[in-house]
Amino acid sequence: MMFKKILYPTDFSVEAGRALEFVKQLKNAGSEEVVLLHVIDRRGLSDLARFATKDVAGIMAELEVKAKKEMGEIEKDLKDQGFKVKIRVEKGDPFREMLRAEQDEDVSIIVIGARGKAESIPKMLLGSVSYNLVRKASRPVLVVKK
Amino acid sequence: MMFKKILYPTDFSVEAGRALEFVKQLKNAGSEEVVLLHVIDRRGLSDLARFATKDVAGIMAELEVKAKKEMGEIEKDLKDQGFKVKIRVEKGDPFREMLRAEQDEDVSIIVIGARGKAESIPKMLLGSVSYNLVRKASRPVLVVKK
Repeated sequence: MMFKKILYPTDFSVEAGRALEFVKQLKNAGSEEVVLLHVIDRRGLSDLARFATKDVAGIMAELEVKAKKEMGEIEKDLKDQGFKVKIRVEKGDPFREMLRAEQDEDVSIIVIGARGKAESIPKMLLGSVSYNLVRKASRPVLVVKK
Repeated sequence: MMFKKILYPTDFSVEAGRALEFVKQLKNAGSEEVVLLHVIDRRGLSDLARFATKDVAGIMAELEVKAKKEMGEIEKDLKDQGFKVKIRVEKGDPFREMLRAEQDEDVSIIVIGARGKAESIPKMLLGSVSYNLVRKASRPVLVVKK
């Protein structure tokens, strides 16, 4: 089954939302389960914390609360469509965590938005996360654009 | 309709064949039409011809006959699945012809094998065709791996 188990990483951006529409559409092509992944990007957080009113632990805690709320909404949406859903909220480097989830969960395919909200133009020139996934993932990757 | 009209470029490689299985599976997710594209790679053909027993025109003619035969077989397979099929056999730079077909045909999505048979390791390091498509195409791209 080519589309049976989908890894869908989201940063809650507009493009990730568009990718979710493709995930839902794949239900009719044999999709049964979605592994819903959000990675709290730990990189640079200690630099950021120097200018913040909270320490790293406080920022992380707040990001986690926000992530759980958003993930719950997407989970409900997918369950309403008839999918089995597994939620993973990880902390670290998004790209590495995506590859790790792909392996751990033995997914059939990855569906991802072309560009996350944290990705600036200079960063894009070095290669966005989705673009690197196409190189490094071992499963098929569907990159959804605007 | 997210998967309505698929651009499926093929070089008749094993990976392109695997991508075709994904194309067929998308029928149930609302796919109706496939634009079947093969590009006869003109780049380097005049260098090659110096060592061949035929001139460039002769080589091109032979490649065209072979392409038409293979395209006919894929067309039949897709029609049997209920797809409407349009065939394009182009000559030139495969990557550019794919982008041109994407625009001309106003497709919903591109489905392609990760690596074509002509792609050597050094070429891959610079970026394969599928990888560049993810960067440059304006529509979603599904890159199928082994």
